[in-house]
Amino acid sequence: MSTRFVIEGNSGRARRGLLTTPHRRVETPVFMPVGTQGTVKGLSQDLLEELGVEILLGNTYHLYLRPGVDEIRTLGGLHRFMGWPRAILTDSGGFQVFSLSELRSVSEEGVRFRSHLDGSSHFLTPETAIEAQIGLGADVIMAFDECTEYPAGAERVRASMETTLRWTERSKRYFEAHRHEVPWTLDSDSSGSAGGSSEGGQALFGIVQGGMDHGLRKEAAERTISIGFDGYAIGGLSVGEPRALTREIVESTLGHLPADRPRYLMGVGTPEEIVEYARLGIDMMDCVLPTRAARHGLLFTTEGRISIKQARYTTDERPLDPRCACRVCRRYSRAYLRHLYVANELLGQVLNTVHNLSFYLDTMRRVRHSI
Amino acid sequence: MSTRFVIEGNSGRARRGLLTTPHRRVETPVFMPVGTQGTVKGLSQDLLEELGVEILLGNTYHLYLRPGVDEIRTLGGLHRFMGWPRAILTDSGGFQVFSLSELRSVSEEGVRFRSHLDGSSHFLTPETAIEAQIGLGADVIMAFDECTEYPAGAERVRASMETTLRWTERSKRYFEAHRHEVPWTLDSDSSGSAGGSSEGGQALFGIVQGGMDHGLRKEAAERTISIGFDGYAIGGLSVGEPRALTREIVESTLGHLPADRPRYLMGVGTPEEIVEYARLGIDMMDCVLPTRAARHGLLFTTEGRISIKQARYTTDERPLDPRCACRVCRRYSRAYLRHLYVANELLGQVLNTVHNLSFYLDTMRRVRHSI
Repeated sequence: MSTRFVIEGNSGRARRGLLTTPHRRVETPVFMPVGTQGTVKGLSQDLLEELGVEILLGNTYHLYLRPGVDEIRTLGGLHRFMGWPRAILTDSGGFQVFSLSELRSVSEEGVRFRSHLDGSSHFLTPETAIEAQIGLGADVIMAFDECTEYPAGAERVRASMETTLRWTERSKRYFEAHRHEVPWTLDSDSSGSAGGSSEGGQALFGIVQGGMDHGLRKEAAERTISIGFDGYAIGGLSVGEPRALTREIVESTLGHLPADRPRYLMGVGTPEEIVEYARLGIDMMDCVLPTRAARHGLLFTTEGRISIKQARYTTDERPLDPRCACRVCRRYSRAYLRHLYVANELLGQVLNTVHNLSFYLDTMRRVRHSI
Repeated sequence: MSTRFVIEGNSGRARRGLLTTPHRRVETPVFMPVGTQGTVKGLSQDLLEELGVEILLGNTYHLYLRPGVDEIRTLGGLHRFMGWPRAILTDSGGFQVFSLSELRSVSEEGVRFRSHLDGSSHFLTPETAIEAQIGLGADVIMAFDECTEYPAGAERVRASMETTLRWTERSKRYFEAHRHEVPWTLDSDSSGSAGGSSEGGQALFGIVQGGMDHGLRKEAAERTISIGFDGYAIGGLSVGEPRALTREIVESTLGHLPADRPRYLMGVGTPEEIVEYARLGIDMMDCVLPTRAARHGLLFTTEGRISIKQARYTTDERPLDPRCACRVCRRYSRAYLRHLYVANELLGQVLNTVHNLSFYLDTMRRVRHSI
């Protein structure tokens, strides 16, 4: 085991836990901000620390294309490259290959695609995906999977699940053979004063697919568990299905995951959803929503959502959210934030992101305290 | 007198002083970052405070067009609107009307122009320019002038100078009649713990024009002084003339300005130039160079300039400037900053701006300490 996961409290199905990674102990349930290209868009690492971010997500697909895994490995890995001493999780790149690149072909071996940046040709396999993630050196890395599209017929869903299971097995095998190649060493220094563990290296999580079929989800969970991982993710959701269905699948899949390992729901969700899923027993979530919405002027508050571009805020002196204690709500008015948005000022995107992330992190903090 | 200006030390022609404004005591010589639309692009007011910024510049032209002077006045003035408790200087809007808008016509009365934002028609006069600046409520405001183009014939330069002098006189007259309309009151609270003065309100500076003609500069200085202002600016430079000529004109104009009032050189300059002009006896400067260059990846360091996009920095782990103690140089490598630039990430613009401004402010701090 490369991570230790200790459950410190329960409330209904919800769990409060502590995930010890090489770079940081992470309190769960946790929301992980997305730092696609090695940066949470617009926010300095100082600010992320101040917001209390303990773990963030990096996208292997983006970093693999630019600046490149070799460059980051040469510089000591993603933590050093970014100047971020706390925990990082990287995805396997599979989801982005499907959603962003010009996809050339999926074979048993892997996925051939063209870069969305320059059209260059690449081949991603379970082995190269894990190799890349070892080179980046995140604390938690993900097995290479195929995200099944929605809707999909029964045969397609089963075939896709079987592909994912074979890729999952190959991911595990490659990881076990190469995990020592991580670009950092685990001396007591690198684990930091905040209490990382020096007991192990990277952790590998498996991803459970199976579309919207309860039976296949159960089978995928059991077969993934039998391969054996440090934690388990639920993938292939939030791909266009109705929200009620997402919840059903999450709930039923959770029933088949071991209680003593972290459970990660990928790519979710709204503030209401992250609370709901934490209550169902999810330990980790990530989503671009708070950061992307912020850049588009959509702000989350305890009184609902605000679209800051609206003319009604032109001379509104109130803070975004009177009940929020973030740097933005302590200092700036809605009128100022609206002006920044309308004038297309960089600072608008920065401040909106600070607030939305703060709102998400506060929300999760309250959930933890309630467990 | 609305500001107090005390000279605390001299070294050659250079002066170290203390400019007391309603919102902040400002150590001079000072470099004022440019916050065109009520924000120094990309930097939060928290960061500006941390960098030691005591006074920044707002552009009346931009704020007049968006969000509008009435909106800002309603919200208590530019300080409250921005959440910036320290000093602000606004320009008169004249320079930007000439450089940004579709200029319709200059008459004795003022300047008719079309907004660069929406083509709407506006008429700016000495009276409306001062009215706008009173409404914005900066600590230091500027008389309305005509910036003479370069090159210009002798007759044109004299005519333009005469226009500026008549507009300067009208600016002063309007200011004296309306200065009480400033949107803040000078109770001990608004002056802040950092020691603003509650003795007076806004200060009005006159601008000396006169092109590249030493005789006209002398005449413009003397006639502006006889109208009487709290401080004096040298305008109409950095408009395309050779640098040696700029320096000559600055030097000769300075000789005609009173020693006991602050002297402000507008729109200047490089790090080398701000040092040079401070040594000549200039007390205040502003320039978009550090912030604009930062957004284009051009960075100032004690070892010279760095164009961060260059491939040579791809795996360069060194800080931008090993002798710089700013947040950026303490935490991030050139490789990371290059990646952010190449990936067109917001954070690149933010961090580059923090460094460049820090470099300028440190430079000026060293100049002050040397006097």
